[in-house]
Amino acid sequence: MTAPTPAVTAEPRTDAPGPGAYMESELTSQPDTWAHAAAIAAEQRLLPAHGERVAVIGCGTSWFMGQSYAWLREAGGFGETHAFAASEALLHRGYDSVVLLSRSGTTSEVLEVSQRIPAGTRTIAVVGDAASPLIDLVDDVVALPFADEQSVVQTRFATTALALFRASLGESMTRAIEHAGVTIQVDIDPELVEADQFTFLGQGWTVGLAHEAALKMREAAQSWTESYPAMEYRHGPISIAAPGRVTWHFGPPPAGLAGEVAAAGARFECDDFDPMAQLVLAQRVALQRSRARGLDPDSPRNLTRSVILDA
Amino acid sequence: MTAPTPAVTAEPRTDAPGPGAYMESELTSQPDTWAHAAAIAAEQRLLPAHGERVAVIGCGTSWFMGQSYAWLREAGGFGETHAFAASEALLHRGYDSVVLLSRSGTTSEVLEVSQRIPAGTRTIAVVGDAASPLIDLVDDVVALPFADEQSVVQTRFATTALALFRASLGESMTRAIEHAGVTIQVDIDPELVEADQFTFLGQGWTVGLAHEAALKMREAAQSWTESYPAMEYRHGPISIAAPGRVTWHFGPPPAGLAGEVAAAGARFECDDFDPMAQLVLAQRVALQRSRARGLDPDSPRNLTRSVILDA
Repeated sequence: MTAPTPAVTAEPRTDAPGPGAYMESELTSQPDTWAHAAAIAAEQRLLPAHGERVAVIGCGTSWFMGQSYAWLREAGGFGETHAFAASEALLHRGYDSVVLLSRSGTTSEVLEVSQRIPAGTRTIAVVGDAASPLIDLVDDVVALPFADEQSVVQTRFATTALALFRASLGESMTRAIEHAGVTIQVDIDPELVEADQFTFLGQGWTVGLAHEAALKMREAAQSWTESYPAMEYRHGPISIAAPGRVTWHFGPPPAGLAGEVAAAGARFECDDFDPMAQLVLAQRVALQRSRARGLDPDSPRNLTRSVILDA
Repeated sequence: MTAPTPAVTAEPRTDAPGPGAYMESELTSQPDTWAHAAAIAAEQRLLPAHGERVAVIGCGTSWFMGQSYAWLREAGGFGETHAFAASEALLHRGYDSVVLLSRSGTTSEVLEVSQRIPAGTRTIAVVGDAASPLIDLVDDVVALPFADEQSVVQTRFATTALALFRASLGESMTRAIEHAGVTIQVDIDPELVEADQFTFLGQGWTVGLAHEAALKMREAAQSWTESYPAMEYRHGPISIAAPGRVTWHFGPPPAGLAGEVAAAGARFECDDFDPMAQLVLAQRVALQRSRARGLDPDSPRNLTRSVILDA
């Protein structure tokens, strides 16, 4: 048995002007890439039809965006929708369609799972790289090359896919785009850059955003970060709340949470921006924390742009 | 609106001989309580019948045990089984039965969700305290008073419920019980007691055990701990692996994982014990880390035995 070895698939950086330069330019472009995704109605129509039973599959960031899409699609009455990490997907459940989300379209588990989908199931890939090997393995392809990225720590591809999903469900993205236009510019409180620990919380569709915010902080800044459904926080994880630590909620928080976090001595972050615009703010905190620690989120420790296992 | 205030519901400790005394006596009783659960066939028959579509609902530890049960039940061909945190349960999906797992049977979200279950769905509570208010809200009750606990950080109630579930699916618990008989006694490596950080991993039914191990370490020892499906680990979280940190896999690990963790400089923990016996070992590490830090897992910071919100 050959041990799997991650392989770098991105083009080597030759002209990067400094640590996190790609991440910075990519995350600040999100209002534009979201607007683009919201406008491409033909691509949105390739997504699963109303009433279908759907699985959404991805790895890491793509899994978290799949969680948000699944919740919104099902809550919107479009049909039961289950999100899976590719390695843990339960494909025997009789899905009408499977959506495979992958920036690179080269991730080993996504390619592998695409070949285990039962015949008769429609498969739709949502990818950043339109030349990916995944496109030959599926029935339909939604390519978002305008949101592809060079940074290993991805930001805009994930959120742009979610903007596409939200728009496909009939939601206007105008408010989210306006809010992100603000959160790419506001000053970041230095206390957030220096905090010891972050816990991100959400409810319903924003649980996936909380997981994604935590992953950004972990990858970019090697910080201690956690994430949970908000009401689960009191069932154990609140034991970590303390002075110097931050609890950050995406979307309207449950009653009483702010007080409980304050009682534990931690800082409670929450605002009225669209939750995707809040995520942009968390991405910016991750970038600033990364730079403050002398790290480079464009090529972080132990990570590559796409995880490919040698056969 | 009144802000929620957690309330202590356990009897006050009056005779505790020292920090973590309850947790220690409870966790070391697990081989006995598992054997008891495996033997109560009449209670096992109260669980959902073969072929039913089932939701399993809990909070915190009970949610994680529900994840393990759901995976095993569905993989065993007993029927589609979805696990939910009580606050995020999707109850409109047309389940035949709902299993509500709660040590105390007093947790606010569990009581609340029990009243949102559509009429015609059979409801089954699995509780530690047979006098809980939950028992009047369900069709059937499986009480496990022999596994109830006094420590706030729960160990044996959760695993005993899982032993009941596994036995109900036709699995022999003999090997798990034998292995736990070993893992309650083996020496704990001091390096584990001193480690900076733990990441717990699993696949399939052991993903729930990984989440539970992380929660124990967090609650009991206020340690930095994370948990993921094993193949997700390379999609970001492995950025945290470093010397002085531990990556611990429940059950047989995927090919190559040990090498990747070693390459990142972290310690890789994995053995051939039944995964529930491995969890007992993780509980013991959490207890020793708690004591080494001068903490008391029987009444940890910010936590109560049951989370009850004032109306």
